[in-house]
Amino acid sequence: MLHPRGALRHSPLAAVILTGGEVDAVAGLLHLRERQAFTLFATARVHAVLRANPIFDALSAEHVTRRAVPLDQPFDLPGGLTAELFAVPGKVPLYLERAGDDDMSGEAEDTAGLRIASAAGPAVFFIPGCARIPASLADRLRGAALVLFDGTLWTDDEMIREGSGEKTGARMGHMSVAGPRGTMAAFRDLGVRRKVLIHINNSNPLLLDDSPERTAAERAGWEVAYDGMEIVP
Amino acid sequence: MLHPRGALRHSPLAAVILTGGEVDAVAGLLHLRERQAFTLFATARVHAVLRANPIFDALSAEHVTRRAVPLDQPFDLPGGLTAELFAVPGKVPLYLERAGDDDMSGEAEDTAGLRIASAAGPAVFFIPGCARIPASLADRLRGAALVLFDGTLWTDDEMIREGSGEKTGARMGHMSVAGPRGTMAAFRDLGVRRKVLIHINNSNPLLLDDSPERTAAERAGWEVAYDGMEIVP
Repeated sequence: MLHPRGALRHSPLAAVILTGGEVDAVAGLLHLRERQAFTLFATARVHAVLRANPIFDALSAEHVTRRAVPLDQPFDLPGGLTAELFAVPGKVPLYLERAGDDDMSGEAEDTAGLRIASAAGPAVFFIPGCARIPASLADRLRGAALVLFDGTLWTDDEMIREGSGEKTGARMGHMSVAGPRGTMAAFRDLGVRRKVLIHINNSNPLLLDDSPERTAAERAGWEVAYDGMEIVP
Repeated sequence: MLHPRGALRHSPLAAVILTGGEVDAVAGLLHLRERQAFTLFATARVHAVLRANPIFDALSAEHVTRRAVPLDQPFDLPGGLTAELFAVPGKVPLYLERAGDDDMSGEAEDTAGLRIASAAGPAVFFIPGCARIPASLADRLRGAALVLFDGTLWTDDEMIREGSGEKTGARMGHMSVAGPRGTMAAFRDLGVRRKVLIHINNSNPLLLDDSPERTAAERAGWEVAYDGMEIVP
């Protein structure tokens, strides 16, 4: 947005919807300070996390309207779209864990999935973090036109094995893509028309075009998201 | 740092020194979470700002050592370098201002300049934010080998005039590059051997290679920093 030759600062963003309070979900807000007018939708729990961090006051109330939305209740977005947040299995953000607290007992509002739909068109699901797929979530996604889903890790312990981290995927609230309890298996019979893996950790061999893991994911009907990807209905 | 083909996550950073608590000074820390071991140096005041924002707990105490350093007292860095923070005129971070509080009364520890030197070599100064240059600061910088200095705005009201912001430079704690009380004028007789403008706002015409402002700055002996710039002694 370099613009010393006349064009004003401009962002096409009209709304931001947060599905959680983890660093990778909220840190980008700090780039939207200074006269970017938009509405910020999130659960009351995630709004409380932002309020507990004064640095987010850089998003001034004059320009950014914060709206707490309850789970499972559709709300209107600018442009005639409807959105809805719903609970998915997850956990409290890592930086809010108390010492020794390594269970998965996030509150329902800590990790959400997002459904967006236009009046006429099919629904899109955005679920960047998900610890497992219970029957209720499977039912919700069945037959969907498009699901963007948590592709953090290929296998649960890959960060530990390669020495880049000390946490398993389960510990971080992410189910793995591979394996009998993984994402590919869970989606196999859901009849989702288009499936895209997002939120991919840099340890995940999926990122390599020529890896056997990429081939396996594509054979299972998955696409792998990339920077600048555009999705046309 | 994409590395699914074997190389471990790696950062060459051994130390991070903060000169203030403003968003643009501290938000980058959030990219250094997860097993990046380094020492974080800052004034006690800036450390308190970080502590007041739980999101920075993403920098775990296990890997990141936080060291509060007093102003005007040199401290050792890894690699045989010596550093020193000193007060420069500035202000409290914008997001910590109380309503109606638009004076420049930051505490001394809110805005610092940094001096780094090796045992044998000349000193380098890093001053990304500075509201004015009092005689004490001029004396400190006189004859320096290299100064990297606040180049936020060319003129105090340029963000207002172009409609990209509602604050003057003075309001934000930044002196302007041009003008009789600007940076070029203040440095004219200091005999600094190499002068580089940094922290340049995207409203600043300096950013354009072919602008008259760029020409004026270069004629006054200034370089304009750019992404990826390397400085070789």
